[in-house]
Amino acid sequence: MITLNNIKEAKNKLQNIIQNTPLALAPILSKDLGAEVYLKKDNLQLTGSFKLRGAFNRLACLNEEIRNKGVVAASAGNHAQGLAFAASHFKCEATIFMPEATPLTKVSGVKSFGAKVVLIGENFDEAYEAAMKFTEENNKEFIHPFADDEVIAGQGTVALEIIEDIEDIEHIVVPIGGGGLISGIAIAAKAINPNIRITGVVASGARGMKESFESHMPIDSVAVKTIADGIAVRDVTPKLLDIILEHVDDIVEVTDNEIANAILFLLEKHKLVVEGAGAVATAAIMHKKVDVEGSKVCSIISGGNIDVTMLSLIIEKGLVKSYRKMNLIVTLMDKPGALMNLTNVLTKSSANIVQIDYDRNSIKLEFGEAHVTIAVETKGEEHQKLIRENLKQAGYRFKQI
Amino acid sequence: MITLNNIKEAKNKLQNIIQNTPLALAPILSKDLGAEVYLKKDNLQLTGSFKLRGAFNRLACLNEEIRNKGVVAASAGNHAQGLAFAASHFKCEATIFMPEATPLTKVSGVKSFGAKVVLIGENFDEAYEAAMKFTEENNKEFIHPFADDEVIAGQGTVALEIIEDIEDIEHIVVPIGGGGLISGIAIAAKAINPNIRITGVVASGARGMKESFESHMPIDSVAVKTIADGIAVRDVTPKLLDIILEHVDDIVEVTDNEIANAILFLLEKHKLVVEGAGAVATAAIMHKKVDVEGSKVCSIISGGNIDVTMLSLIIEKGLVKSYRKMNLIVTLMDKPGALMNLTNVLTKSSANIVQIDYDRNSIKLEFGEAHVTIAVETKGEEHQKLIRENLKQAGYRFKQI
Repeated sequence: MITLNNIKEAKNKLQNIIQNTPLALAPILSKDLGAEVYLKKDNLQLTGSFKLRGAFNRLACLNEEIRNKGVVAASAGNHAQGLAFAASHFKCEATIFMPEATPLTKVSGVKSFGAKVVLIGENFDEAYEAAMKFTEENNKEFIHPFADDEVIAGQGTVALEIIEDIEDIEHIVVPIGGGGLISGIAIAAKAINPNIRITGVVASGARGMKESFESHMPIDSVAVKTIADGIAVRDVTPKLLDIILEHVDDIVEVTDNEIANAILFLLEKHKLVVEGAGAVATAAIMHKKVDVEGSKVCSIISGGNIDVTMLSLIIEKGLVKSYRKMNLIVTLMDKPGALMNLTNVLTKSSANIVQIDYDRNSIKLEFGEAHVTIAVETKGEEHQKLIRENLKQAGYRFKQI
Repeated sequence: MITLNNIKEAKNKLQNIIQNTPLALAPILSKDLGAEVYLKKDNLQLTGSFKLRGAFNRLACLNEEIRNKGVVAASAGNHAQGLAFAASHFKCEATIFMPEATPLTKVSGVKSFGAKVVLIGENFDEAYEAAMKFTEENNKEFIHPFADDEVIAGQGTVALEIIEDIEDIEHIVVPIGGGGLISGIAIAAKAINPNIRITGVVASGARGMKESFESHMPIDSVAVKTIADGIAVRDVTPKLLDIILEHVDDIVEVTDNEIANAILFLLEKHKLVVEGAGAVATAAIMHKKVDVEGSKVCSIISGGNIDVTMLSLIIEKGLVKSYRKMNLIVTLMDKPGALMNLTNVLTKSSANIVQIDYDRNSIKLEFGEAHVTIAVETKGEEHQKLIRENLKQAGYRFKQI
């Protein structure tokens, strides 16, 4: 059993080595929701996620002799980086097994802490199997990413930091993947004040823990698919489900669209880079999946390790959705001056053209016509309406895509 | 004259209203440069920049009767947001003049704090003129963004926070636009410990203050052009030059490319959204424009209000430069199967295709040929070399763009 004391001990071990991450009021969310909404910014943790806490505590608790034989993990994500960092601190060898297709940035992130990386297998399960085999054959210590008491105790230190900063916090909203973070947080928070409400958030594409919570028994998912890859966990660990059933009040879910909204919101309004898994708690609050009105609530931003290409995509889609970008296909007469006339109309409408494609070969076109695909920066819904009206008045056929 | 005492008084006025922003070690920079490099994250300030400090202190120092008549500024940037926030705190009216072409996000950012926005003029100078006229005609108070003692004292509070966190800091590196931030910081830091070195950083496209510093007299720029729009200041204010000549040790400059590198570094490694002006100090340290080896140095991240479209562009260019994306034009025979064969070669090279364009109408092409423009995700320089070799071996003509 994990106790508040274990978590306090973990905090002592982590002291002065890892960051006590910033916690700050989110003014816009607070105003919009009639609440005091705080953000716990563990994306600003060293290695970019809370996972360092658990991995570090696990190694700190290991007998030195065992630790010196080396530690092993299977992970392409935040656990790998956390463990690599912790191993470099304790000057022990870490071997991380990752699927062959792991992006270079993740591999080099782990290598930069001096860990060995073994790229093996088509998917995570194959890498995991290879890691287990390697551990046994070489008499090393396997470090599980969440189903481990000392890892959970390490993650629980997040709650202690929150309560140090805001003594009278009433509600903590936490992402759930394997369940290690919420288990640690719930044990610590409820032991300090049983009235603190704990809500977990899963991604709609990986709702195993929510279904298990509702039916009081472990239900594994058949498949998981979400932009929150850090919490795309397929199987439910019975022991963690038990902790969650005992200490957690509710579990809600958010869609990929809601997660993307929250990522863009945190990027623009809070200047924070947040990964999908790191944004689900904020997404749940923003989209009123949890009732926070009138309360002091803390959203945990658990990590920031998002691929920048994905971030670009989220920005792009977000701009279109929030009427700041507009994509149009306009049908033109394929003759000199046709494009100039179109750009004139757009200029007069204060629409800044950012991309343009001209096509006269589409089989959908009549002879003598051409399609122009055009992307323009716009200033909002009203502005887009104005542009559409101006195009119509000038006699253009077009559709918005 | 502005004294340490003025700055301490400003700090008292700001206490519990604005953020005492986080300061944290930058492990990678520290390791790479053999130094202790810290980041002062004022991009996490309310309103996303340090400008709130100065604007708030200015209003806090105003006689209540005058304040209640309303305040005015000309700014499309961080000063506008800072002043709007401060005015809403003091429940006084703020009128902000912005050029007509100001993006909607900046307008609505200011409006969301309850300020009035007047869109007027083709450029900043015209908006400024209108603001001055309005101020005089309506007997209101004009709040200058930097040439103002109380504004400067407010900005100086950044130095007090740094020294509170790291008592023995040896060097502070600060962005320079108009010079308000560095003036406040230099006055405070040198008064506490004259041995603290203060280095200013300008953008190569807006180097007026650097030239003025070197020739000991104000030299205005003819034109300014940089991605660091927050420090794209054309004219040098003699009074601020005097303060800088007295208290600042050196001024260096960084290019737009170096600034973009720093923005991407802070985004990926520190999970921070930083605007161009906010990244120049880190850019100068990264690119060894300042000698930091063996010292405790703090880089000021002054703001995070970057347009997300610009952020997307910086990511895109950064991916190409760091060999994580590769754009190719391949010449194909225009016949069935040609594209499939090409994608086969790329698949075997583990190159993930992210964009593709097919063109058989270019006048550069022989009959029967087609151009494929293709963008692939790659894992580094070696991987790109391998892809080029595989394409060559398969007999393709191509060039990298």
